[in-house]
Amino acid sequence: MASVLITGSSRGLGLAFVQELASRPASSIAKIFASARGDSPVLDKLSKEFPDRVIPVQLDVTNQASIKKAASEVETKLEGKGLDVLINNAAVCYYSPGLVETMEKLEESFLVNVMGVHWVTREFLSLLQKGTLKRVANITSTFGSITEARFSAAALCPAYKVSKSAVNSLTVQYAIDHEKEGFSFIALCPGWIKTKLGGGDHADLTPEQAAKASLEIVFTEGQVYNGKLPIVFVEGFEKPREGSWLVYDGRICEW
Amino acid sequence: MASVLITGSSRGLGLAFVQELASRPASSIAKIFASARGDSPVLDKLSKEFPDRVIPVQLDVTNQASIKKAASEVETKLEGKGLDVLINNAAVCYYSPGLVETMEKLEESFLVNVMGVHWVTREFLSLLQKGTLKRVANITSTFGSITEARFSAAALCPAYKVSKSAVNSLTVQYAIDHEKEGFSFIALCPGWIKTKLGGGDHADLTPEQAAKASLEIVFTEGQVYNGKLPIVFVEGFEKPREGSWLVYDGRICEW
Ligand SMILES: NC(=O)c1ccc[n+]([C@@H]2O[C@H](COP(=O)([O-])OP(=O)(O)OC[C@H]3O[C@@H](n4cnc5c(N)ncnc54)[C@H](OP(=O)(O)O)[C@@H]3O)[C@@H](O)[C@H]2O)c1
Ligand SMILES: NC(=O)c1ccc[n+]([C@@H]2O[C@H](COP(=O)([O-])OP(=O)(O)OC[C@H]3O[C@@H](n4cnc5c(N)ncnc54)[C@H](OP(=O)(O)O)[C@@H]3O)[C@@H](O)[C@H]2O)c1
Repeated sequence: MASVLITGSSRGLGLAFVQELASRPASSIAKIFASARGDSPVLDKLSKEFPDRVIPVQLDVTNQASIKKAASEVETKLEGKGLDVLINNAAVCYYSPGLVETMEKLEESFLVNVMGVHWVTREFLSLLQKGTLKRVANITSTFGSITEARFSAAALCPAYKVSKSAVNSLTVQYAIDHEKEGFSFIALCPGWIKTKLGGGDHADLTPEQAAKASLEIVFTEGQVYNGKLPIVFVEGFEKPREGSWLVYDGRICEW
Repeated sequence: MASVLITGSSRGLGLAFVQELASRPASSIAKIFASARGDSPVLDKLSKEFPDRVIPVQLDVTNQASIKKAASEVETKLEGKGLDVLINNAAVCYYSPGLVETMEKLEESFLVNVMGVHWVTREFLSLLQKGTLKRVANITSTFGSITEARFSAAALCPAYKVSKSAVNSLTVQYAIDHEKEGFSFIALCPGWIKTKLGGGDHADLTPEQAAKASLEIVFTEGQVYNGKLPIVFVEGFEKPREGSWLVYDGRICEW
């Protein structure tokens, strides 16, 4: 009977999380707080389809007042229960016109992709402490792995990469500090996905595949992924394929 | 006949860099641009002691206009020559009163420790490209190593740690993009130093020791340290000692 909150669920992977969770029985997924910074017709439609289970919540991860308001709404809706899972999914990815020195959007990327995660996590922490699962998945990318930086050199989004390294580091700070309470703070790489951020149809995975595979990690029993950077496992993508070296084999990546 | 610019040289390690470089013969270290954000009597004194070699420059790493002004001053003083070495040394370190969620200074830390490095590097890049050595040392810390995060868990400065992880990532972006031109972008850990930031006399190394050992890395021939995180080598500190697990053995640290 888990409750889950997802940020940035107006589209892409965030929306796929909501749809996948809603498709599961109410006995396993009780409440899905589908948050988005703007109005979202698609979430409104889902909330009509799954009344009392899909609950749209307005939440801009860069606006602390908006986060506070969202947390108090969620608290009311949980009627004394805790929140079981938080998925920090919202992010932005900017490309640079040339080499790294042309990068202009590092501060903006940091604001959404790192400060957003810190502010949201901090605000929902007491609700998560009352929850039974104590899972926080920070959706990140192997693009943030400094060790693997040479593999992703062709993608000209240094601001995204640096911000994801920073949120990986932040994840581990939370992981260490809250391990004893039973938390798992996971820096989770969902693979290369056919979304706006992923650049569309050239990518490897559908949002549905990525969401399902990510949830496998999120709901794994115990604290095996606490403070780690797992990449999803997706059947058919466990080995390098013609034209792609990206492998979704469920491994733990180096930082 | 190298020229070197150091940021944050009003005190601590930055000042020790200036003093150590000034003590070397003018035939090896021609010009030392000792930059600081405010007035600095100690730098003024050094510039009188070493006229035309120690050149104080006003530079606030968080102020892009100040960086531009400094770069144009340095260009004039170099009289057509390039800049050989840039040491991005300025940084701040804030402590949190409790667990990571109490952290309030992440944005400020990011501004000085990451944006500052990006802005300064970008502005001085064309002068460095005209230089012969092409070295950029970003002074960082093993506190920014996510892999080693559990070893530094007792130090309650998560904002510093996350910002140093981010600047490590930024360093590698520059390292990859400018490797073919002969650059070395180094994420350099100078050890635990008796400075204000290091917490004073409890630390292991004097600023002089740390500066000397760091310069060994900076002036190492070739590009062996490009895109890497070396820690200094200091005699007498190569092995764990009574009461301290911190080892300065010249190793390359994991990210
Ligand atoms: N796509 C990939 O290939 C890939 C690969 C690795 C990791 N990831 C990660 O997966 C996650 C989801 O990415 P995606 O591919 O689904 O991206 P996407 O299609 O661009 O969706 C991004 C989502 O984030 C939301 N968002 C942006 N800024 C926000 C803010 N300030 N407050 C609240 N929400 C905000 C967007 O809302 P609006 O609709 O209001 O703009 C949107 O819902 C991200 O963390 C991304 O880094 C993606
Ligand atoms: N001390 C250690 O144990 C230790 C360990 C590992 C790494 N490090 C790294 O070593 C470097 C030097 O640290 P330290 O120990 O010498 O620290 P420190 O004694 O606190 O000195 C910091 C220096 O940075 C300057 N600074 C701060 N903000 C600035 C800005 N906006 N613009 C220009 N300068 C600015 C300060 O100038 P003001 O005088 O104007 O404040 C000062 O000169 C840092 O990168 C630090 O992270 C230190």
